[in-house]
This record gives sequence, structure tokens and C-alpha cells, in this order.
Amino acid sequence: MLNKERWDHAKRIIPGGNSLISKRPELHSPVDWPTYYNKAKGCYVWDLQGNKYLDMSIMGIGPNTLGYANDTIDSEVIKAVRNGNMSTLNCLEEIQLAEKLIEIHKWADMVKFARSGGEANAISIRIARAATGKDKILFCGYHGWHDWYLSAELNKNSLNDHLFEKTGIAGVPSGLQNTNIPFKWNDLEDFKNKLLLYEDDIAAVKMEVTRNILPDKGFLESIRNLCSQKNIVLIFDECTSGFRQTFGGLHLKYQVNPDIAVFGKALGNGYAITAVIGIEAIMKEASKSFISSTFWSERIGFVAGIATLNEMEKIKSWEIITSIGSKVQDQWMEISSSFGVPISVGVLPSIANFNFKSERYLEYKSYLSLELLKAKILGGNLFFASTAHKSIDMTDYFKIFERVIKDISLREKDLIGQLVPDEKIVETSFQRLN
Amino acid sequence: MLNKERWDHAKRIIPGGNSLISKRPELHSPVDWPTYYNKAKGCYVWDLQGNKYLDMSIMGIGPNTLGYANDTIDSEVIKAVRNGNMSTLNCLEEIQLAEKLIEIHKWADMVKFARSGGEANAISIRIARAATGKDKILFCGYHGWHDWYLSAELNKNSLNDHLFEKTGIAGVPSGLQNTNIPFKWNDLEDFKNKLLLYEDDIAAVKMEVTRNILPDKGFLESIRNLCSQKNIVLIFDECTSGFRQTFGGLHLKYQVNPDIAVFGKALGNGYAITAVIGIEAIMKEASKSFISSTFWSERIGFVAGIATLNEMEKIKSWEIITSIGSKVQDQWMEISSSFGVPISVGVLPSIANFNFKSERYLEYKSYLSLELLKAKILGGNLFFASTAHKSIDMTDYFKIFERVIKDISLREKDLIGQLVPDEKIVETSFQRLN
Repeated sequence: MLNKERWDHAKRIIPGGNSLISKRPELHSPVDWPTYYNKAKGCYVWDLQGNKYLDMSIMGIGPNTLGYANDTIDSEVIKAVRNGNMSTLNCLEEIQLAEKLIEIHKWADMVKFARSGGEANAISIRIARAATGKDKILFCGYHGWHDWYLSAELNKNSLNDHLFEKTGIAGVPSGLQNTNIPFKWNDLEDFKNKLLLYEDDIAAVKMEVTRNILPDKGFLESIRNLCSQKNIVLIFDECTSGFRQTFGGLHLKYQVNPDIAVFGKALGNGYAITAVIGIEAIMKEASKSFISSTFWSERIGFVAGIATLNEMEKIKSWEIITSIGSKVQDQWMEISSSFGVPISVGVLPSIANFNFKSERYLEYKSYLSLELLKAKILGGNLFFASTAHKSIDMTDYFKIFERVIKDISLREKDLIGQLVPDEKIVETSFQRLN
Repeated sequence: MLNKERWDHAKRIIPGGNSLISKRPELHSPVDWPTYYNKAKGCYVWDLQGNKYLDMSIMGIGPNTLGYANDTIDSEVIKAVRNGNMSTLNCLEEIQLAEKLIEIHKWADMVKFARSGGEANAISIRIARAATGKDKILFCGYHGWHDWYLSAELNKNSLNDHLFEKTGIAGVPSGLQNTNIPFKWNDLEDFKNKLLLYEDDIAAVKMEVTRNILPDKGFLESIRNLCSQKNIVLIFDECTSGFRQTFGGLHLKYQVNPDIAVFGKALGNGYAITAVIGIEAIMKEASKSFISSTFWSERIGFVAGIATLNEMEKIKSWEIITSIGSKVQDQWMEISSSFGVPISVGVLPSIANFNFKSERYLEYKSYLSLELLKAKILGGNLFFASTAHKSIDMTDYFKIFERVIKDISLREKDLIGQLVPDEKIVETSFQRLN
């Protein structure tokens, strides 16, 4: 069966075709993307036909900062499997991972674990509401699929700048209208206005420390101060930003401490583990609410978390991936400039990304992906660096990138005709990554 | 460090001490429970001091119907670890597990996966609301920690019969009041009254196929018919009941098909994997809502699910565990009767359980646990059978049970004095399991 046929079959029995939107081929290369893998190791992926690809794309959309199937992590995971992943009793690693996260984040006292980022974000909201007795949230950025978050879109187009344009929110109960209110990134006036409007009813401010634009000087600090003044719980969602530029939350770099921080993705290097850390005065309120799940007690998540943090600390992985991502972004910029193709690049180097400053950006992105695929490279305008990319020769990758940019520079002047046919053009992705 | 001290330390850094209420020592034996494990295999657990215990209790609270660290499942999991648990591409096993679940449940067309039971239940509610454009739910039983479910308790004491007495629901937003309405088990009149009251606003009926009482003849059928007549989505939560008495949902036994069924626990024999299966007309509405999570795409869950279903099918595990659980319940009954200690036993034999018909039931349960612990047996009034229990000699277990029952029978006449000191008496557990 061809990969495309297999994917079409998948969409008939799984709504959307899979469990994670970011791994749908429509976002990478609708017809030619290999879509399925047999094996992944380091920064390479083997498809079902045995083709070996260099992954210069999303690396699992962020979890694998130490590369795929990292032997150091996996040997601990396999030990946990052999010694029993589940039991009537608890595993000690749950305490050890909690201790490690508190050690890294001196301001935090307590930790609650889950197995997906959406869950962890929902837990943080539950705890903040429990601690304040209030319901409303001010938010900026993307924070998962749960009702509390998507309800923002009950007031039309509230998620346009934060998730997708016209995010689908069918099935979110209307009683949550006006409970989750967006504020604009780096717009302190907007934040203050929203604060003034809802002040007495706000449980929490939920935000990312950095999105596609760096925080202006004083932005995070001002929000921190206002939250403290008004007894509002400040929650940093570090699912994407954590352990990428610092050992821990990106907030450590800015020296602005939240009341709660949420971690996911990189925490277990590809194994499902997420965490909510916070100060005791707020976290202890969790015990006034029923928050419990069978699979939150399985062992692999905790074991992978500990092994990943130890390995990160040992090799200073955040420095390695920041350096790799920076070099890639610099090269993108240099090549594009030299051909007069305007692009902008991201601000968190280990999640390197660029945007074509052109209305034809989806066509150009599709063309780049297609040309890279011919050389057995997975790639687009988003590259999650891993430590496994350290020893990789990227010469071929940049040669193709250069040729593509050259073609685009020629085509940009000629507005008639497309570099790729319609059916091979990618769909728009998360706004925040474009 | 003593286990008790370690647990007290855990409670200082993790709200409640762990991620799953059912694994807290307060529910089993507050002072003497080993609480932490190093190793689990078959139906045995080794604590941190190397003591080996026979598990005649919750077996991880339900996931391990094939025993702990089952070699057949684990060898597939280890293969998945070695070949990469995560990648930019999708794993084929996601499709294969979907196909298998549809093959087992002929009425179902599509499947959506998650990694915890609470998530899967929340997804099923989102899809039902999306498909109907309505918000209200009629429910019976326990369905997880999420806002949609706990909101029932915003109308005081609505969860008393379904979860805990006085369930903590701090942090559940008030806008959800009157969106989740309880109905009484086996009370068709109550169901019809609720239906009449909210008819035009009901998206779904959410229930378990069996709780601690069997469904009366016609109860499930009547609810099915009424839901069909009123275009209400019928959702069976099979997280606990699935794959225990039938190969698939317990509804297969009753030949009553829901529109959606939710699976968890036993599906992956101890590895985190949960599923929402349903008919196409409703499931396809999921694509109108953003439901997506990074860790839902990891490979272990799907691989463990497939291996578990194959092994279950091969050995007919549901027959084995039903037979074991039945024998245990029969023995409990026989011994208790012979000493004139009245108990009642459960109706789903593979989740064998009994209740002392006495106001002193918590004291008696605590005494039983304590006496079993002395013989290195984990036990109480709830026993999840696994296929690993097939070859176990339970003579010692029943000898201790008999001695305990004898002591209780003597003590029941003497109302002064306790069999165990106050600090060793267990807390009350889920209502539905008492």
C-alpha cells in the first residue's frame, strides 16, 4: 500500500487520521510525505519501505532533544519495563522526579504529574481556580485541547492569534463563555485593560514565556508584579519552551518566577510524562479537588523523566541544541538574503523556524519540503534541534535549501505559475509557528 | 527510611502524595502498607526492602489482567523502545489497534486514542456535544477527574452515589452548573424523569454497563431505545469493565450497542493507552473540534494495546480471570457464612469484592489487610484477578481470611474494643467499590 493510500485509510477509521495534528502529512507534504515510520534513531527516521531520512523537521514535535531512541534513556526505560511498569504499589521514581524538578526550580515546592501536556495545563487551571475560588483566566498563547482553553473561542476569533485561524471548537460547553480571555503578547496596555475589566474574578494568568517574539524588557516582570498585587496565580506554560535554552523552564533565564509552571514534551525525551510544579500555598489546594488517573501512576514516565534530566544536565543539552539551532537559523538567513528572498527567523534557536515574507509562503514551504524529500531529508520551515544533530553533516541540506531559495527568488518575480501543483501544497499550521 | 516516613515526605512535595488516589496507603493499611515497589512480576510485588508479596488486592487498580511484566507484551514494548518510541512520522500500530478494536466491536467504525481514562471520557463528551450541538449530559457512575464530570457536584451531593461522599471539586468553574445530571442505577423512572426535564438540551447519556449491581433486565435496552428516539448519544464507559468478562466491552454480553464506548485500564496491560470507539456519523464530528496531544502519538501505547489484545484473544483471558474471581468470591462467601459474618460480594467476578454488612466495616477491612500483610500478602476487600493468579496456591490466603473472619465473628458480639488501633484504620474509598 502506498503511504498516501494508507493515510487515506487511516482517516476513514481515525478522525483526522491520527492523534496529533502536527504529524498529519497535510502540514508537511500532502502527497509525498512518508507519513509512517518503522524505526527512529538519533536524528534519522526509516519509513515502512526502509528509506532512511535525516530529520531536519519537527523531531516528534519537540520531545526528543536528546535524539530518537537515546540509549542512555532507553536502557533505564527497558529496566523499568523488566521490573514492572505498573503495580499496586507506587514507584519511588515519582518522588525522585518531583525532587529533581524542585531542585532545578528553587522557587517551587510541590509537583503534580500527568501524561499529556493538555492534562497538565488543565490541572494547573483547576489548582489555580481551587486556590482563588475564582473562575476567569487571562491567557496568551497555546495551551492544549481542553474545554477551559478552547472556550475562549466562544467569543469568536479569540484564538486566531494563539492557535489556528478559525479553530474548531464544536462541543465546548457554552457555560464557559467569558471564562478564558486572551491578551496580546508584549502588549502591557492590553493586559492591564483586561485586568481592569475582570479584576475581581480572575483566578490565573496563563502564558508562555516566549512565543515567536521575545518578551519586551519588563513585560514578564510587570505581569508578575500585577499578579502578585491582585492575588492572581501566574502560570507559565513551559511545555514547549522548557529545557531548550536553560536547564529547566525558560523563565529561569528571565529570572521571573511564576506561581505554577507546566512541563511536557522534552521532559521524558519521547516518553509520556508531564508535570505541574508550584509553590506550596497554591499547590496544596489540589487536595481539595479530585485529580487522579490510573495511568499517571505508570513507571516509565517517571523513569524516563529522571534519566532525561540527568543526561541533559551532564552534557548541557540546552547549550548544544541552542548552538545547532542558531547555526541553522543563521544559514537560512544568510542564504535567503544572498538571493534577496525575505524571511524572518524565530527567537528560540532550538526551535528554529523561518517564514517566507510572501503571500505564496505555503507554496514555497511545500516546494522546499518536496525538494528535501527527494534527497531523503524531512524538512520544512520548522526545525527542532536535538543533540543528535551535533555530528551531522548538513552540507547537502543547505545545498538543497540554497537551490530552492534560488528557484523561489526567480519565481517571486514571475507571479504566474506555481512551483508545486495545488494538491501538493501544505495546509496552514499553528499560527504561532508560521 | 521507613515506608511510612517516605510516604509522609512524598505528601510534602506531591499533593496527596502520588498521582492516583487508589494507590494511597490510607486506603489499604495506613501504617504498615509497603507503599513502594522495586519490582512486580506475575502476581507478585517486591517492596524496597526486598520483601516479596502476593498481590491479592487491586493489581495496579485494573490494568494488569495478564499479570505484571508479562513477557509477551513486554517483548513487543521493548522492541518499540529500541526502534524508537517517538518520531516525526506516525507509527503504523495506531491504525492496527484501531482496526482491531473495530473488528472486536462490529458496530463501531472509528477510533480516537488518548493516554488516560479521564482524557478519553472527556473526548467522548466533546464529540457527543459537537455532534448534537447540545451541552447537557445525563450520567451514572464514575467517569474521571475532568470538569465536565465533577461539575455535577456543583449541585451539592450529586456525586455521593457515584464517586466519593463529599467529593472535592474545588476549582470546577461554576458556568458548568446543571450541565451534568446524575440518574440512579437501575431506576428507569428516574432516568425518564431526568430525560423529560432536560430533553431538548441533552447531548449524551454517559454510563457504565455494570457497576456494583447488575443491570435489571431491560434497563440498558430501554436507555438505548430512548436515546435513539431522542437523538441522544449513548456512551458506555468501559474503562473498568472492558475485557474482563468478554473480549471487548461488557456491552457485547448484553447485546446493547452504544454510539460511543470508552476503553482504558486493561487495554494495554499496564501501559498507558485509552480509546474512544464509535459510529462514523458521530465520531467524524471530532474533526470539527481541536482534539490533539503530543504524547498521544507515542508508540508504546499502541504496541502494548495490540500485543495485549492478541494475547487476551489467544488465551481467552476474560474467561480465566472470571473463573478465578468467581472462586475467590465463592470462598469469601462460604467462609463468612460459616462464621455468621454477613458479607455481600460483587457482580463482576474478575473485579471480586465484598463488603462487611457492619458499621465497623472499615475496622474489619483494616484488620484483614494487617493480618494478610504479616503473611506477605497484599489484600483487602477488593481483588482484581489476573491470569497470573491461575497457578497460585491460595491456601494460606484463605487460612488467614478464615482466621480473620473468625476473630470478627467473635468481636462483632463484643461492641467494646477495636481489632486495630485508630491510626491503622483505612479511609473510606470510592463509594462504588464499598
